[in-house]
This record gives sequence, structure tokens and C-alpha cells, in this order.
Amino acid sequence: MKGKIYVVGFGSGDRRVMTEQAVSAIENADVVIGYITYIDILKPLFPNQNYIPSSMRRETERCKIAAEEALKGQRVALVSSGDSGIYGMSGIMLEVADRMNADIEIEAVPGVTAASAAAALLGAPLMNDFAVISLSDLMTPIDLIYKRIELAALADFVICLYNPKSKLRTEHIGKAAELIMKSRPKSTPVGIVRNAGRCDCAVWTTTLEKLGDEPIDMLCTVIIGNSESYIKNGKMITPRGYLIK
Amino acid sequence: MKGKIYVVGFGSGDRRVMTEQAVSAIENADVVIGYITYIDILKPLFPNQNYIPSSMRRETERCKIAAEEALKGQRVALVSSGDSGIYGMSGIMLEVADRMNADIEIEAVPGVTAASAAAALLGAPLMNDFAVISLSDLMTPIDLIYKRIELAALADFVICLYNPKSKLRTEHIGKAAELIMKSRPKSTPVGIVRNAGRCDCAVWTTTLEKLGDEPIDMLCTVIIGNSESYIKNGKMITPRGYLIK
Repeated sequence: MKGKIYVVGFGSGDRRVMTEQAVSAIENADVVIGYITYIDILKPLFPNQNYIPSSMRRETERCKIAAEEALKGQRVALVSSGDSGIYGMSGIMLEVADRMNADIEIEAVPGVTAASAAAALLGAPLMNDFAVISLSDLMTPIDLIYKRIELAALADFVICLYNPKSKLRTEHIGKAAELIMKSRPKSTPVGIVRNAGRCDCAVWTTTLEKLGDEPIDMLCTVIIGNSESYIKNGKMITPRGYLIK
Repeated sequence: MKGKIYVVGFGSGDRRVMTEQAVSAIENADVVIGYITYIDILKPLFPNQNYIPSSMRRETERCKIAAEEALKGQRVALVSSGDSGIYGMSGIMLEVADRMNADIEIEAVPGVTAASAAAALLGAPLMNDFAVISLSDLMTPIDLIYKRIELAALADFVICLYNPKSKLRTEHIGKAAELIMKSRPKSTPVGIVRNAGRCDCAVWTTTLEKLGDEPIDMLCTVIIGNSESYIKNGKMITPRGYLIK
């Protein structure tokens, strides 16, 4: 029997926000492989599965294990939060399988990405064109990240920041706010969601000027409005341009 | 009894790609309201619901009907494909309820957006920063759209185009490709998905140079690679930057 790898995006970790396809890929997997924090989220939801947790930054190793299991004929679910196709495990899995010359079927199972989950809780900030930028410089040079932020601000994109801060990387978010303020007012609304879609989630709004001082951590998603975004009745809205009659 | 409106993103139209939350919001709705094409997709999946279809470009009217039903105490599912929070009905619904001074609970139920669905079928093109741009100039001036495309290309974003072409609007996609070629090679890989996630879906790749001549229509999503994207074994990949050892 030939194995197969499903690279599954499981969304926020609330089962209700998973797609039926993701639930089925996990339930029918012989082995579920992922970063230990994600495995800890899934275990209570799918208690009868066989899990192989792995530690942070061991992405390549994790994919090799997935490939080896699949070559043994196992059905593998390689899991990431959000959408496996947005800063997720889909790319590295395809690259590792290719380097191994492993003839394995690999199927990406998309999920609800953090931008979508956060936007739903904030109101409707993504009704017009937007850019998604990760502030993590582990894999992209920080100068390129800053250049993208400046150009995205100039283009009047709504800007959605993933990985806005970590314990060691605390300065980027304030610097990003400064760069955006070169072409957007200080009063521009900003929405912040921590743990989007989970029961301990927090949702709040602020302004570009105050963004650098907000209690943001790596579990947050930050959405910075464009020049037309506003906050009303507690909801952050970017008009799409429909004529309200 | 007080009504409530769920603004539901139902993904591609394949039930397996819907979240459990979206399925439940539709199944438990007293009335399901949406653009007629979307209602036609949902009817076979949820045959026992009470539907109110409406025609294209009647978004404001549709939201007013939703609000009136909710004020009567009905549970309403206002549906859009993909994610209701990305170019969907979430924003206009909040705006209409506000203009009506209607005190209604409105909850956005996010879904898998077309960018995620298309990326999963193409391989892993969204592993690095990206911009999402709609080529429809019904609600955004075309000059602003072109400006965004040029700046997104300069910033080396992967560029995901929604609404790339319609019957009357056929020139934008070729012009977009030209603008991107100012700062990116003609050979840049491009992925195109028509009807992502549905049984009649089509998936193919091309290059930036040939993009203007591809048989693209309004049901397509187009993903243009960044300077590092490549196609191998039929899969389009944007490296995240993980070191492959």
C-alpha cells in the first residue's frame, strides 16, 4: 500500500473552525505529525490518534519523518495552525520530498488563515486590497520586510502582520508602525487579535501611533487599516466601495 | 425573540471545504440570503432551507432584507463564497445595519478564501509575504489598482489576483502582467485556478509573459510568483527560506 501525506491547516484550534476535509484527514491518519504546541491543541479534539510531536525550528526533520512514514505505507497528517499553505508546512514538505526523491502523494488541505479569523472578530477590515507580511526575520532579511511594509503603505493596502513579536524580537512592530506613518495618519485604526478563534482570545483596537506600545506577542495578528478604514460601534471596517443608498 | 445575522463564508462550494461553523450557521438558519449563483450552489447541499436569492450588484438591498428578517426575530445566514470577510458581505452588512440604526447581532463566520484554495491546488505559492488585489474596478478606481500592482511587484510580494477578468473587463489582466514585468522577469511562474475546490476545477501554470493570453474568466484566481518562486514536478512553490539540509 502506498502512503500519502495530507498537509493540513487546522485553523485556530477550535474544531468548529476546521473544514470537514481537515477533520477527516486527521481522523483517518495513521500518524499525526506537527510542532508540539499544535499537537497539544489537537490531542483533546482527536484523543485517539497516534501523534509524533516535534520541537520548534525542526521543520525539515519533521517533513523527513512524514516522508519516511508515508514511504512505509502510512497515511500521514502533517499539521499546522491556520492555513497550511500560508507560511505553513506545504512548501517545505514538497521541497523535502523532492530532495529525497520520494515518490509520495502530497495533498494540501487548506484552512482558515489567521487573517480571516482575526478579520471576522474585528468586523470587516479586509474588504479591500491587502498585503500579508510576516515580521519574523528568521527566514526573510529584515531590510526586505521593512521595504515591503513601506511599499504596502504607499499602495494603501490594508496590512496584515503575522508573527508581529516574539520574546527576542520586540522592536519590529514599533519600527513597522513608524514606516507606515510616513504615508498614513497616526490616527489610522489598527485591530489586534490574540489567539483568534480560541476560547481565550482577546480582540482590541488601537491606532498606528500607539501600536508600538500595545501588549503584543507571537500569538497576535495585527491588521492595520488603509486610508478609508474606520472604527464604529466597536467594529473595524474598510469600506469596499458599495454605494449605500 | 431577537434575531441574528451570520455572515457566512462557505468556501468553494464543496461541503468538505466548509467549516463546521459555516455548516451549522446555514443548517440552523430560518432564512438563507445571497446572490442567486451562490444560492444555486448551496441548494443541493442544504435542500431543506428557506432561501431568498438576489441578483448581482444588489448588495445593499440584500443586506436590508437580512436586517429586516433579523428584526422580525429570524436567524439569518447571509452567504458569500470564499471568506465573507475578504471582498465579501461582512463590511456592507455592518454598514447597512448601522445606517438603519438596526440593533441586530451580526457575527462573521470566516471561510477558506480563494487564495488559500487555489494555493493548495497549485502547490505552495504563498509561503512568503503576499498581496491580494481585486482587478474589478467597479468599486476601486483602476488607476489605484494599477498603482497597487506596481508597488506590490516592486516589493517582491507574491501577488494574488481576484476577479481577474469579466465579460466586459478583459484588458486589466494583460496590463497587470505588463506592470509586474517592469520589475520581475517575463519567465516568472504564474498559477491559475478556475473554480478552486469544486469538482469542475481547472489548475494550470504559465508565465508572466503569457498571462495576458490565458483563457481566464471571472471564476479564476491568479497567483503570480515572487522572484524566488519556481515550478517543479508540476507544483508551484515559493520558498519560505527554511534551510534544506
